Amino acid sequence: MSETIDLLRRRVADLHQELVRYGLVVWTAGNVSARVPGEDLLVIKPSGVSYDELTPQNMILCDLDGNVVEGEHLPSSDTAAHAYVYRHRPDVGGVVHTHSTYASAWAARGEPVPCVLTAMADEFGAEIPIGPFALIGDDSIGRGIVETLAGHRSPAVLMKSHGVFTIGKDAEAAVKAAVMCEDVARTVHVSRQLGEPLPLAQDDIDRLNFRYQNVYGQRPAAQ
Amino acid sequence: MSETIDLLRRRVADLHQELVRYGLVVWTAGNVSARVPGEDLLVIKPSGVSYDELTPQNMILCDLDGNVVEGEHLPSSDTAAHAYVYRHRPDVGGVVHTHSTYASAWAARGEPVPCVLTAMADEFGAEIPIGPFALIGDDSIGRGIVETLAGHRSPAVLMKSHGVFTIGKDAEAAVKAAVMCEDVARTVHVSRQLGEPLPLAQDDIDRLNFRYQNVYGQRPAAQ
Amino acid sequence: MSETIDLLRRRVADLHQELVRYGLVVWTAGNVSARVPGEDLLVIKPSGVSYDELTPQNMILCDLDGNVVEGEHLPSSDTAAHAYVYRHRPDVGGVVHTHSTYASAWAARGEPVPCVLTAMADEFGAEIPIGPFALIGDDSIGRGIVETLAGHRSPAVLMKSHGVFTIGKDAEAAVKAAVMCEDVARTVHVSRQLGEPLPLAQDDIDRLNFRYQNVYGQRPAAQ
Amino acid sequence: MSETIDLLRRRVADLHQELVRYGLVVWTAGNVSARVPGEDLLVIKPSGVSYDELTPQNMILCDLDGNVVEGEHLPSSDTAAHAYVYRHRPDVGGVVHTHSTYASAWAARGEPVPCVLTAMADEFGAEIPIGPFALIGDDSIGRGIVETLAGHRSPAVLMKSHGVFTIGKDAEAAVKAAVMCEDVARTVHVSRQLGEPLPLAQDDIDRLNFRYQNVYGQRPAAQ
Repeated sequence: MSETIDLLRRRVADLHQELVRYGLVVWTAGNVSARVPGEDLLVIKPSGVSYDELTPQNMILCDLDGNVVEGEHLPSSDTAAHAYVYRHRPDVGGVVHTHSTYASAWAARGEPVPCVLTAMADEFGAEIPIGPFALIGDDSIGRGIVETLAGHRSPAVLMKSHGVFTIGKDAEAAVKAAVMCEDVARTVHVSRQLGEPLPLAQDDIDRLNFRYQNVYGQRPAAQ
Repeated sequence: MSETIDLLRRRVADLHQELVRYGLVVWTAGNVSARVPGEDLLVIKPSGVSYDELTPQNMILCDLDGNVVEGEHLPSSDTAAHAYVYRHRPDVGGVVHTHSTYASAWAARGEPVPCVLTAMADEFGAEIPIGPFALIGDDSIGRGIVETLAGHRSPAVLMKSHGVFTIGKDAEAAVKAAVMCEDVARTVHVSRQLGEPLPLAQDDIDRLNFRYQNVYGQRPAAQ
Repeated sequence: MSETIDLLRRRVADLHQELVRYGLVVWTAGNVSARVPGEDLLVIKPSGVSYDELTPQNMILCDLDGNVVEGEHLPSSDTAAHAYVYRHRPDVGGVVHTHSTYASAWAARGEPVPCVLTAMADEFGAEIPIGPFALIGDDSIGRGIVETLAGHRSPAVLMKSHGVFTIGKDAEAAVKAAVMCEDVARTVHVSRQLGEPLPLAQDDIDRLNFRYQNVYGQRPAAQ
Repeated sequence: MSETIDLLRRRVADLHQELVRYGLVVWTAGNVSARVPGEDLLVIKPSGVSYDELTPQNMILCDLDGNVVEGEHLPSSDTAAHAYVYRHRPDVGGVVHTHSTYASAWAARGEPVPCVLTAMADEFGAEIPIGPFALIGDDSIGRGIVETLAGHRSPAVLMKSHGVFTIGKDAEAAVKAAVMCEDVARTVHVSRQLGEPLPLAQDDIDRLNFRYQNVYGQRPAAQ
């Protein structure tokens, strides 16, 4: 198992650089975590450490109550929210949190991003929904994420007045959802600045989403 | 011929980095292809592979029906659209597809970008037109591109609720059109945020476009 | 003491690169300074020197009246404002000045940035206030900064028609405040472009700010 | 003299990278030139060559009628405009042209950028004025630049429906003006999106501009 954890430490450390590359985070804000498959454990970013200094070694190993199992630093202050998601969504293997600009701008108005782009139908299959306003410090944020995404196709939720949480089968999928969330939040914002984007028919959204989730990319066997 | 194809593989792989450099793509979205001159073949990006991992070797060689001739990965999910363009436009040697932000924002409203900048008259010679809404999976997108650009000076079309396709005599020209399309879509958007851009006279557009297409740049013999 | 000053020279030189990294400055605009702990001295950027050429060696050592103590160049033209802050705020160890785009846009309207994001409650604990219009050349800017921030939780002030000044316990904290100031100024701006951001309750702002200022990040002993 | 020209070739080639760094240009658009001091000669970018491939060696030496004196490529298609400026403004040693987004957005509306920021008073000392609509191909653009900037403090002019031209005592000063022009065009644009920027009093503009042009930066003897 320690080999799996070492690989996850590297994977989670590296994925944080994708948040930097796509401009989703500033300073020490934002975090990525991954569930240790088959274990009640997660790997997450340390709290308040610069993105330049993130290494596989300083990632924190926690149990699913957010207690540190291995690590010299404190874990991300959002660890409780990540842990709550893993406890209540066994299908989720990765969680990401950012305050990316455009997504957070929609969140600040408490307004979902309408599904008006084919790329949004592909990745989100619906509007990106708004979760409740919740203070850090207990299970409120985690519960808000889980309740909002229950039965929703979208892997992203805009927590009111706060920012974005995304989920995925693994950490990479959750990072991809965070990147796509900001991208479509920005494009739809820009589009609405000069008028109303055309609606997509529900049937078209359904077909695009089905195809993308089942056909797009490389077949596992091909990689 | 295999030497030509090797050169095209390198050229197409390299041109994908221009999409990254100019911020036209995120994650694995977007794709560039090139026709193999004199052959019923095209070279295109593999599907769902990171831009960091694109190499001459993993570009996919397809016939003009989109079937893989050589390549270990699946070709871009937009291959059918590229192939359709090559079959119906023998003058086209390169095709590019992106969801670049500002161009896609106009596409989401189904609104063409008006030709109000001299740089737009140079490169596009007209408004950047809107193509139909078309679902992926058959010839609808390819047909929409070809029909919209038939008899149009613009090498770019904004596919409704989707994104941009550009064409060119070769892949580099199509990439240039994609870069310029986003650039003018952004500038005209920004300009309209605070009022109406001044119209350009048709006669001025015609003169600028003629000069740019026939005089600008280095004479072939000079290079 | 000269060892402390050498460390501060390096620290201040390096922190200027954070202004570049986050796009807060262009050309030679902007500056960071640090108080020499326990001395009536400060270290600051030279005036009109390119960010590429900033080194520990060309940082300027001044007294708290802004007179050069050590350095081959003239100090930043904003040195008087920095020095005024250090003279009147013994708790301040670092000062930063930028014309970052979104913060300066609020400053140009003379409008404070309302506290409508949890990240803003964390870092600023209140709106980011507007300071007076003040000309460079005497103590007006320094006095405007000190008077506006007196008794205010925010470490950032938007000087009317001008730009941002931030303070911190050290230079790094002031740079962090400058980075966060632009980040939230941008997000709130974008949010307001399409409607009104939801207000945060004062009680929630208070609780978030208290927690962030007292609990977030690594405990000193842990580092 | 050939040593002076070699130095200018390097200087002009290098300064083009500043246009890239600050995002003022895409693809091959934009150009920088420098007058050869004391000679009826200028050094300018070749036409249609990628910014990655610009070197001291491929800069073009022209006379002040725009004829190539030395160079293997064709000079920038804007050479006639640069040459006209040098012929009619003996005080000008550098000229820059870009289509930078925010400046061009104001140009597309034919609207000057009002002087509402202290940084704008410093560098421009007034609004950034609008020049006439002029087609490429004869002296119209050059004449429009010279006539608009005659007796104006601003080193930048927004050519209607086109883009920016800036002048300076040398090429570096003109590049600085191009960078600052885009910066203030963007900040004032953003500010006006949510209301009206506060006006600056003419007297304050005058004082700021006098000080900046006469006191800011390093004294020549100090460098």
